[in-house]
Amino acid sequence: MSTITAKNGIDVDQLVETIEAIREDPNLGAFTFRARSSWVEGTHNVGEIGGFTHAGAEDQSRAAPFALQGDEPPVLLGSNNGPNAVELLLQALAFCYAVGFVANAAAKGIEISRMDYEIEGDFDVRPFLGLEGLRPGFTRIRAKGRVSSPNATPEQLQELCQYVQDTSPVRDCLANSIPVETTLQVV
Amino acid sequence: MSTITAKNGIDVDQLVETIEAIREDPNLGAFTFRARSSWVEGTHNVGEIGGFTHAGAEDQSRAAPFALQGDEPPVLLGSNNGPNAVELLLQALAFCYAVGFVANAAAKGIEISRMDYEIEGDFDVRPFLGLEGLRPGFTRIRAKGRVSSPNATPEQLQELCQYVQDTSPVRDCLANSIPVETTLQVV
Repeated sequence: MSTITAKNGIDVDQLVETIEAIREDPNLGAFTFRARSSWVEGTHNVGEIGGFTHAGAEDQSRAAPFALQGDEPPVLLGSNNGPNAVELLLQALAFCYAVGFVANAAAKGIEISRMDYEIEGDFDVRPFLGLEGLRPGFTRIRAKGRVSSPNATPEQLQELCQYVQDTSPVRDCLANSIPVETTLQVV
Repeated sequence: MSTITAKNGIDVDQLVETIEAIREDPNLGAFTFRARSSWVEGTHNVGEIGGFTHAGAEDQSRAAPFALQGDEPPVLLGSNNGPNAVELLLQALAFCYAVGFVANAAAKGIEISRMDYEIEGDFDVRPFLGLEGLRPGFTRIRAKGRVSSPNATPEQLQELCQYVQDTSPVRDCLANSIPVETTLQVV
């Protein structure tokens, strides 16, 4: 019965209804997301992100899949047809933090007028190339947000930043260990 | 002095020279990659992946940054302007595995005629919404590769699949813990 229906472009009524529905039926919180890739040549691959499963049923909201390009820069033997895989990981963290910040701000009545992220990751390519090195993945990731709000204090925004970190799906996947099962079919 | 200069579209001579150069001067293996995002409205953000630092200097190979769109589907309060952040994470794993497989195959003289990945991640949205749940990130990721090669045995390809897992930057970032430092500037 809230009179607020949208804040920051987030439909707060729908957000509250979604939370209540999932609280009633936890199965509504279950998703399986998917991505595909097909190799083109060298370090160039095309990717596709289309349907996903929600509560056991296939989502039908996307008319067509999203197409993505992945490649390496010349210094890593590619032709810059797209960003590389680890850059995409940093982009995912930026998007995740931004959605978390803006949606949670909306739920708390905080208006956002600007929300930018710059993410950096330090990387040692040696283990990928079969040489001794620190580790195959990023050794450290730094995320810097910049936010403006006409109706929140800096303290409220810093508190929200901590909450967003604690509940961020992508941050959890990076900061903590996820089971990854890999299989190969030879065709 | 190899007579093989390219396999699978990978310049094997350049690959070998790169490895030797980094072995001589480990600083040549150091990169800092970056991604930015700017919030548009609701769950919609635009991303930008442009330059990166290699061995302390800014790479100049990209004429313009890559633009990306991030959004949620309607069931997660968005408008499908792009894939969501956790889908992008799965796409990054697909691209990373494919580059690792094809490049390492080239180094071993293995020809690849097809290399596809399908990645799935099981996800419980409840912790993101402030409800009790398993964890904010994926609870499990499954990566299924499909490969064809005219000159390698299934055993060689399975062995390569294991090597690629062991040296994959994105797999390492997901399967193991990475330090993520997050700061917020109120402007």
